[in-house]
Amino acid sequence: MTSDINRDPVRVAIDVMGGDYAPREIVKGAIQAVGQDGAELILVGSEDAILKELERYDVSALPVRVVNASEAIRDGESPVAALRQKPDASVLVAMRLVKEGQADAVVSMGHTGAVMVSAIKILGKLEGIKRPSAGSFLGGFAPNTVAFDLGPNADCKPRDLVNFAVIGSVVARKLLHINNPTIALLSNGSEEGKGNKLVRETYQLLKQSSLNFIGNVEGNNILQGKANVIVCDGFIGNILLKFCEGLGNSTIEWLRTRLGKYLTQKEIDAIGNDLFALTHIADVGGGAMIYGVNGVVWVGHGRSKAPEVAESIRQTKLAVEANFLGELKSELGEIAVKIQITGAHVYEPVNIKLL
Amino acid sequence: MTSDINRDPVRVAIDVMGGDYAPREIVKGAIQAVGQDGAELILVGSEDAILKELERYDVSALPVRVVNASEAIRDGESPVAALRQKPDASVLVAMRLVKEGQADAVVSMGHTGAVMVSAIKILGKLEGIKRPSAGSFLGGFAPNTVAFDLGPNADCKPRDLVNFAVIGSVVARKLLHINNPTIALLSNGSEEGKGNKLVRETYQLLKQSSLNFIGNVEGNNILQGKANVIVCDGFIGNILLKFCEGLGNSTIEWLRTRLGKYLTQKEIDAIGNDLFALTHIADVGGGAMIYGVNGVVWVGHGRSKAPEVAESIRQTKLAVEANFLGELKSELGEIAVKIQITGAHVYEPVNIKLL
Repeated sequence: MTSDINRDPVRVAIDVMGGDYAPREIVKGAIQAVGQDGAELILVGSEDAILKELERYDVSALPVRVVNASEAIRDGESPVAALRQKPDASVLVAMRLVKEGQADAVVSMGHTGAVMVSAIKILGKLEGIKRPSAGSFLGGFAPNTVAFDLGPNADCKPRDLVNFAVIGSVVARKLLHINNPTIALLSNGSEEGKGNKLVRETYQLLKQSSLNFIGNVEGNNILQGKANVIVCDGFIGNILLKFCEGLGNSTIEWLRTRLGKYLTQKEIDAIGNDLFALTHIADVGGGAMIYGVNGVVWVGHGRSKAPEVAESIRQTKLAVEANFLGELKSELGEIAVKIQITGAHVYEPVNIKLL
Repeated sequence: MTSDINRDPVRVAIDVMGGDYAPREIVKGAIQAVGQDGAELILVGSEDAILKELERYDVSALPVRVVNASEAIRDGESPVAALRQKPDASVLVAMRLVKEGQADAVVSMGHTGAVMVSAIKILGKLEGIKRPSAGSFLGGFAPNTVAFDLGPNADCKPRDLVNFAVIGSVVARKLLHINNPTIALLSNGSEEGKGNKLVRETYQLLKQSSLNFIGNVEGNNILQGKANVIVCDGFIGNILLKFCEGLGNSTIEWLRTRLGKYLTQKEIDAIGNDLFALTHIADVGGGAMIYGVNGVVWVGHGRSKAPEVAESIRQTKLAVEANFLGELKSELGEIAVKIQITGAHVYEPVNIKLL
């Protein structure tokens, strides 16, 4: 335990209007979290709707307060346009609470893009970060590996991927406690020169950086622990995460039949549950931290119900207590990514110490 | 059985110099294939090397002949440059045998790019096809689904993906016997408007085509049979195939421990073998057909050993016997893909009946 650990109760602002099961399951999960973890909760959204939900619980003795927000972002809306048209959207109001020092973190189960954009808009980006990124560790099959980006950044340029490598490197150090994490590009071949245009160009940038870049890894290497940080664009990251879930589901279904003659239903269920946890990487945490914005921001799955909401609150609370944001800032300042652009085919002229 | 089925012995030209275990395992697999399937084999490569390998077998009564090729493409060489510098490369010589009517099909375990480029160079492309594509059906978890592209085409434009959709549609009809196959784009969200730039633009083209386009599918839908044809670029296709293998391996390894106390070693091995077959899609066939060139061309894995070589030869023999190429040509002629470009953001002006 170090002295910079925050000992005050952590105040988490929760966007009650975001998510498929908002507001009911969000409020329910928040109440569960208070009971389990003792965070102070600020429920942000339609005051009427929240108070109606709170009637279901005895909250008189709990550290819960309500902040009204008159608008909400709906799924399907363009995040940028919606946030412009709705200055009082719950997710924006929640971010402002952090900005103004009234909250320590934001949790939202709303549209990932909207959470990302509002975090950037209100909280700003950390120095040296061009594109904040959501990533996570890849679960039990690869306990020493994190992957970035896993969703928000679909169309990327080489310097964005370098940016993810920097964030991933810091996260691997802080979260996985790996001193000099190895960084690899996800590609369709291990040799230099393999890859699509984006990967081939990023390879040249990472090669010249001070990161511990070990080259390309292939799809079959992702879970083998060949690298501590796997770098890819968020389009592929999203597809991979979901494909992992899908293949997990297919395998569990298949095992139910295949093991039927050997094991009891209960034993099969237990194996199924274990394999579910191993393959539903994003479900285990209930979402992902957004790294690179100047605040602790967690975006959960839209499909989250109360237990995932409670888990999300717990994750952000831990991040605040461990002063993860402060550590990230300090680490970013220390990483010297020296990139000299040699080719004319790189999208933008960049000559930067730290992306 | 229809009358256009080829009843003559099928003549397969085998690039003996391609693959990690060439020439030994290639020749061994070829000899196995003659025994099993009765194809006529033409072994193409260094005559000295082939004759030396053939000394290991009694081939006096077998329909095997040798065609000398003085050069070979090595892994790591740029395919285009290597093929230009080596006009007598084994893979080119094999293609010429088909072109000249001396062989019905080519099998190579060499570099995918080199096989693709030499097939296009010597055999040409089918009318309406811009980029030939390698794809396959996705195995036992998704018995009614094929995916294109699975490797050769890493950087794609929207019209390339439409091209893959056309090929996939024909393959699903002919190979899976599905009358009006559904086509979907692999994306990071199901709604129109989700995706990276490539997918969003391709969506607009497919929407206007006469293909049975059903929109986007996500990573978790790939093995669910939501679409008969999954369309993606070859970079993602390659990573997905290999990730599927990797997750399969991790799961098999995990099951060995997890099932240890319930099952015998033999029972566990059997389950592991079954799951291996379900997750190693490309291994089951030993490679993939290249669709869209004017000939039957099979590219196997570089790591193929004799059994996979024999299986590859069997696959091409079946394709020739079923007159798959003729059917593909005829189907392509019937599919009317009418595309009107509405947006200015599409890479190339296209106004074509058939891509």
